[in-house]
Amino acid sequence: MIRIAVLGCGRIGAMHAANIAAHSRARLAAVQDINSAAAEAVAASTGARVMRTAADIFSSPDVDAVLIATATDTHADLLEQAVAAGKPVLCEKPIDLSLDRVNRCAVAIRGAATPIQLGFVRRFDPGHKAVRDAVSAREIGDLHQVAITSRAPGLAPEAYLKVSGGIFRDMTIHDFDMARFVLGEEPEVVFATALRLVAPALMEKLGEYDTVTAVLTTASGKQAVITNSREAVYGYDQRVEAFGSNGMAVSENRRPHEMQISGKGFSSHAAPLLNFFIERYQEAFDAEIDAFVEAVERQRPPVVGFEDGRRALALAEAALKSVAEGRAVKVSEVL
Amino acid sequence: MIRIAVLGCGRIGAMHAANIAAHSRARLAAVQDINSAAAEAVAASTGARVMRTAADIFSSPDVDAVLIATATDTHADLLEQAVAAGKPVLCEKPIDLSLDRVNRCAVAIRGAATPIQLGFVRRFDPGHKAVRDAVSAREIGDLHQVAITSRAPGLAPEAYLKVSGGIFRDMTIHDFDMARFVLGEEPEVVFATALRLVAPALMEKLGEYDTVTAVLTTASGKQAVITNSREAVYGYDQRVEAFGSNGMAVSENRRPHEMQISGKGFSSHAAPLLNFFIERYQEAFDAEIDAFVEAVERQRPPVVGFEDGRRALALAEAALKSVAEGRAVKVSEVL
Amino acid sequence: MIRIAVLGCGRIGAMHAANIAAHSRARLAAVQDINSAAAEAVAASTGARVMRTAADIFSSPDVDAVLIATATDTHADLLEQAVAAGKPVLCEKPIDLSLDRVNRCAVAIRGAATPIQLGFVRRFDPGHKAVRDAVSAREIGDLHQVAITSRAPGLAPEAYLKVSGGIFRDMTIHDFDMARFVLGEEPEVVFATALRLVAPALMEKLGEYDTVTAVLTTASGKQAVITNSREAVYGYDQRVEAFGSNGMAVSENRRPHEMQISGKGFSSHAAPLLNFFIERYQEAFDAEIDAFVEAVERQRPPVVGFEDGRRALALAEAALKSVAEGRAVKVSEVL
Amino acid sequence: MIRIAVLGCGRIGAMHAANIAAHSRARLAAVQDINSAAAEAVAASTGARVMRTAADIFSSPDVDAVLIATATDTHADLLEQAVAAGKPVLCEKPIDLSLDRVNRCAVAIRGAATPIQLGFVRRFDPGHKAVRDAVSAREIGDLHQVAITSRAPGLAPEAYLKVSGGIFRDMTIHDFDMARFVLGEEPEVVFATALRLVAPALMEKLGEYDTVTAVLTTASGKQAVITNSREAVYGYDQRVEAFGSNGMAVSENRRPHEMQISGKGFSSHAAPLLNFFIERYQEAFDAEIDAFVEAVERQRPPVVGFEDGRRALALAEAALKSVAEGRAVKVSEVL
Repeated sequence: MIRIAVLGCGRIGAMHAANIAAHSRARLAAVQDINSAAAEAVAASTGARVMRTAADIFSSPDVDAVLIATATDTHADLLEQAVAAGKPVLCEKPIDLSLDRVNRCAVAIRGAATPIQLGFVRRFDPGHKAVRDAVSAREIGDLHQVAITSRAPGLAPEAYLKVSGGIFRDMTIHDFDMARFVLGEEPEVVFATALRLVAPALMEKLGEYDTVTAVLTTASGKQAVITNSREAVYGYDQRVEAFGSNGMAVSENRRPHEMQISGKGFSSHAAPLLNFFIERYQEAFDAEIDAFVEAVERQRPPVVGFEDGRRALALAEAALKSVAEGRAVKVSEVL
Repeated sequence: MIRIAVLGCGRIGAMHAANIAAHSRARLAAVQDINSAAAEAVAASTGARVMRTAADIFSSPDVDAVLIATATDTHADLLEQAVAAGKPVLCEKPIDLSLDRVNRCAVAIRGAATPIQLGFVRRFDPGHKAVRDAVSAREIGDLHQVAITSRAPGLAPEAYLKVSGGIFRDMTIHDFDMARFVLGEEPEVVFATALRLVAPALMEKLGEYDTVTAVLTTASGKQAVITNSREAVYGYDQRVEAFGSNGMAVSENRRPHEMQISGKGFSSHAAPLLNFFIERYQEAFDAEIDAFVEAVERQRPPVVGFEDGRRALALAEAALKSVAEGRAVKVSEVL
Repeated sequence: MIRIAVLGCGRIGAMHAANIAAHSRARLAAVQDINSAAAEAVAASTGARVMRTAADIFSSPDVDAVLIATATDTHADLLEQAVAAGKPVLCEKPIDLSLDRVNRCAVAIRGAATPIQLGFVRRFDPGHKAVRDAVSAREIGDLHQVAITSRAPGLAPEAYLKVSGGIFRDMTIHDFDMARFVLGEEPEVVFATALRLVAPALMEKLGEYDTVTAVLTTASGKQAVITNSREAVYGYDQRVEAFGSNGMAVSENRRPHEMQISGKGFSSHAAPLLNFFIERYQEAFDAEIDAFVEAVERQRPPVVGFEDGRRALALAEAALKSVAEGRAVKVSEVL
Repeated sequence: MIRIAVLGCGRIGAMHAANIAAHSRARLAAVQDINSAAAEAVAASTGARVMRTAADIFSSPDVDAVLIATATDTHADLLEQAVAAGKPVLCEKPIDLSLDRVNRCAVAIRGAATPIQLGFVRRFDPGHKAVRDAVSAREIGDLHQVAITSRAPGLAPEAYLKVSGGIFRDMTIHDFDMARFVLGEEPEVVFATALRLVAPALMEKLGEYDTVTAVLTTASGKQAVITNSREAVYGYDQRVEAFGSNGMAVSENRRPHEMQISGKGFSSHAAPLLNFFIERYQEAFDAEIDAFVEAVERQRPPVVGFEDGRRALALAEAALKSVAEGRAVKVSEVL
C-alpha cells in the first residue's frame, strides 16, 4: 500500500483525498491544510490523520508520497521541498503562474529521480484518451488537425478570477496540454486571439479575457485549434477532435444519463451535460490517482510530468504575447 | 450511521458490501457466507468483521439492517428470520422461484413494520428512472405503451441456467418489475412467446428458452412489450421506452465513453455498451443502497418492496402459462 | 421510355404522377380520375394528357403500364382489368379490404405473366432496406427478432377511419409486410392485442382500435414485434430493428436536417421527425417507381408483388381473430 | 413562369438546369455552352432549347433571367453583360479569382437595379440556415463564436487545382461566406495558417496548401474559426456551430439514411456521410433556385448578392496575406 498525504484540503484536495482513501493499493496517510478545520473535515470523513505542517509531512517516515492541492502560489515551493525530501509528488496544475519561477523550479529539481506527476487530469479521461490512443495507433493515419472545445459552465467568481493568472494560464492551460498530448509533438508557433464577450465590463476591469481561440502549429506542420469560453449556459462543454489522413476521432460530451424525450415539435436529451469538472472527469481523477500510485510503486516517471507543466505554461505565455502583438509567436521566444 | 450486515459474499454480495462501506451514512457492520473464505476476502478489502452464521447476524445488537445476497433458495427463509428479528432487509431478487413459497413468506411477514426492500436495482438507474419520472409528471401525457428491450451480453453457464428458474423468473423478472414501475398500474393480462434461438440444443435439453417476448395489458388498457435475449454480442442492451398522448421518453444504452471514430466507409462508437450489470447499473446499485439506508433511517416502507417481488414473480408464472397454452393469461389465474 | 398512366389523382396519385414525370426512363402517358378536375390539375402540372375512363387507358396502345391509386374498393377490379389488358400494374395497397375478394382476384389473374407490383413503399426506404440487406448478407448472423415501431403523426379524420378497414388492414398492413420483408420467411402464428387509447370514444363508436401490438412467429421460430399508434405527437415514428446472433441493425427516424440546439438545461434536435409519409418516404416513392419501370422494361416479376399483398392482408385477418379470441392464431386458419 | 437560361453545361450547370426544369414557377428557357455537345446533352434530358452564344441569350426576349455556370474566368464578363442586358443573374461563385477584377465589375454594374444573386448555396442548407435563424432569433443570446468545419471528401485532380485559385479562393470562400452569414456582421481582422499535409509534394509544386485554419474577428469582437482540409476519407464533412451567451446551435453532418449496425465490439452508422456537394446540398440547390425565382418575380435584391461575393473574396485575400506575413491582417488592407 502506498501511503499518500494530501496537502491542501479545499474542494480539489478533499476530492483527491477521498479517491486515495478508496484506492485499493493506496492509503490516505495524512491530510494537511493551513485552515485546520478543512483538514479536520477531510480527516473525519476518510479516517486519515491530520498533520499540522507540510514540513511534518515531508519528514514523516509514514508518508510514501504527497499530493499537492494547495493554493497555486505555494506549488513550486512545496514541489521543491517534496523532491528534496525524496517524496514522489502529484502536483495540481499549474506549477506556478510565472514561467520564470517554473524554470527556477526546474533547475532546483534537476537530476532528482523522484517521480513528479502533474495534475493534467484530462489525459486520463476515457474518451479523450481514446482519441489519443487512436492517434498513437495510427487508426486515423497521419494526424493533421486537432480541435479542442473547452467551455466552463459558468463564470468563476471575481475573487477567483483575480488570482487565476488569466484564462490562458488557468483554463486554456488544460487545452494546451491536451493539444500536446494528442499532437504527440511540440507546438512551435502559437497564434491566439482573446475577447471580452461573457462579461465585458468585469474583464475590462481585470485586464482579462473570457473567450479565446488559439492555433498551435508544430514543426512538422500539424495543427491544434483551441476554443475556450468562460461560460456555456448549456453546461461543461469538453470535446476533443483529431483529424488525419485516414479518418477522424472525436471525444464527445457526456451526460449523466441518456434519457431522451420527444414531444410536439421537440426531441431533447433530458439530462444536461455533466457539470462540472469533478463530475465530468470523475473517472479521470480516479485514473490519475491510479497512475500516480503505479508510478510510485515502480519508481518510474509518471505519464505526465513536470516538463509537461512547464511546456503548457510556455504556450500560455506565447499566447499572451500573440494577443498583445497580433502576430504568430514562436514558443522559443518565451521558453 | 446505519450498520448493515451482508449475507452472501459472492459477486453481488461483495459489490454491495463495497458500496455500503463507501456510503457516507452507512457502515458495513459484518459480512457472512457459508464459504468462509469468501467472507474473509470481503472483510479484508472493506475492514468489516466476519460473522459465522446468519443467526449471529440477526441476533447481533451491532447490526441495524441486513442485505441478503445469498443463493436464491435461501432468500425466503432468511427474509422471514430477518423480519422476525426486526432487522430491516434489502433482499436480492427473486424472493424465491416458487410463487407458493413467496405467498407463504407473505403470510409469515404479514403485519410486520420492518422495512423490506427488494433488489430491483434498475428502478434506480438514472435513465430508466427519468423515464418513470417523466411519466409520473405527465410530461408525455397519458401513458399508452411501454417497450422494454433487455438482452444479456452472453449466455450464462449451463450450471447457472439449471438453477436459474428459467428466463422468465431469472431475467424477464427485472423487466416485469420495470414494466410495473413505468406503467404505474398492475398488468392484468399477459401474453408471452418463448423461443430457442441462441442455443437451441442446450435449451431443448434444459426445457428452457433463451428468447422471449411478453405483452402485458393493464385494466385501463395500457401496454408493455418486453423483448429479451440471453445473448447480444454487441453488449448488454438495456432500453426503456414510454409512449403517451403527449410524447415519448426513451432511456438509451450507455457506453463507458463517447469517442467516435470515422474512416473510409464507417463511423463508429469506439466503446461498446457498458458490460455487464455491475458496470451498467453502477449508479443504480449505489442509489439502491442509498434508498435502503434512507428507508431504515426513517423506518418507512422502501420504494420497492416485498409485494413488488411477488407481483413480478406472478407475471413470470402467467407468462409461462401463456407460453404453454398459447393464449392470453390473466394474472389472477396464477396469483 | 416506359409510358405509364396513373388511375386516381388524389394525394397519392398526384405524387406518383409527378414522380413518374420526373423519372428519366418513364413518361407520364395519361392520368385519369372519376373527379375530372383532379385529373386536369395533375395534367396541368405534369403536361400529361387526361383520359376519361380506366377502360380508355387499358385499351390505349400509348400506355405501357398503369399505376392504380384509386379508392381501395376499386383496386381489385382495376387490377383484374389491367392484367386482362396485359398492362403491367403498380397497385397501391391494400388490394382489397376483404381477403375473400383478394383470393378471388388471385384466381382471376392466375397464370398471367404481366408484372404486378404492390405499393409496399417502405421496402424501398434506404434505411429499412439497409436493415433487410444486412439480414440477407448475414451481417447480424442468424436473425432472431424484428421490432417495428410505426406511429402516425396524428389521427386520421373520422370519415377516413370509417372506410379504412380498420387499423390492422390500413396501417399495420405496412408493418406486416415489413416484418415479412425483414424476416425473410412466412409468419405462421400471430398474436395481437388492440386498444383504444388515443380516441377511446370515437374508437368505441367505430368498433375500432387506435393502438395495437402484434407478435408474429415463423416456423423456424423467428419473431417480429409490431407496435402501432394512430397518433404520435412528436411526429411520424418509423423504426425497424433486426436482432440476430451476430448483432443488431436499426433503421432510425429521419429529420429534415440535423441542427441541434442547446441551452440552459436542454439539448434538442431543432427539427421534428419528417412528417408524413410523402416526406418521410420520398426516396422510397422514387425508388418504388424506379423498380416498377425496371420490372416493366425487363418484363420480370417485381420485387414486391400480389402475393405479398395477399399475405399481409391474411396477417391482418389473423390479428383481428387473435384480438377477438385472446389467443395465438395460425395464419393457416384464415388464409 | 420565369424563363431562365443556363450558361455553362458542365456538372454544376447541368444540375442547375435540371433543378430549374423541375421548378414549379420557372421554365428552363435555354442552355448554352462553348462545348455544344454538353449543351445538347442537357437540352435532350430537359427539353430546353440550345442557344449558340451567351450574346444570343442576353438579347433573347424569351429569356427572363440567366444562371452563369461557366468557367470562373468568364463570370465577371458575363455578369457585366447580363446586367447590361437587364437580365437578372444567378452567378456561380467566385465572381473572379482577382479582387481587382471584382472591384472593376462592381464599378461596371454600380447602380443597376437588376437582381444579382451569388451562388453561395450553403446559405440555403436547411441545417446551416437553422443555425443562422437561431442566431437571428437570438435563441442562443448574444453570438460569441462560430466554428465551421469544412472538409472535401477527396483531393481534386491536379488540373483543377492549378486553375482553382488556391484553397482560400476556391474552398474556404464558401466558409468565409458562411461565417459572414452566421456572424451577421463584417469580419475586420483575419488570421490564417496554411499547411501541406494531404499531398505535400503536389502542394509544394503548385505553391498551394491543402489544410487551412482561419480565425476571423468582427469589430464587436465576435469570432469565427474555420478549418478546412482538401481530403477527409470518411466523407464530405460539413458542420457549422454557433455559440452564444444563451446556448449553442450546431448543424451536424447528414447521411443518406440512419441505419446503425452493432456487432461484437462495434456500433456503426451503416451509411457514410452524403458525398459530395451535389448530394449533400441537394435541398440547398433547390432552395437557391427557388430564392432566385422569387427575387426575379418580385424584382428585389436576392438574399445573397454581389457584395457578398466581393467580401468573401476579400477575406480570402486577407487570409493569404496573413499566411505570407504571419500576422493578423485587417480586411481593410486588401479591400
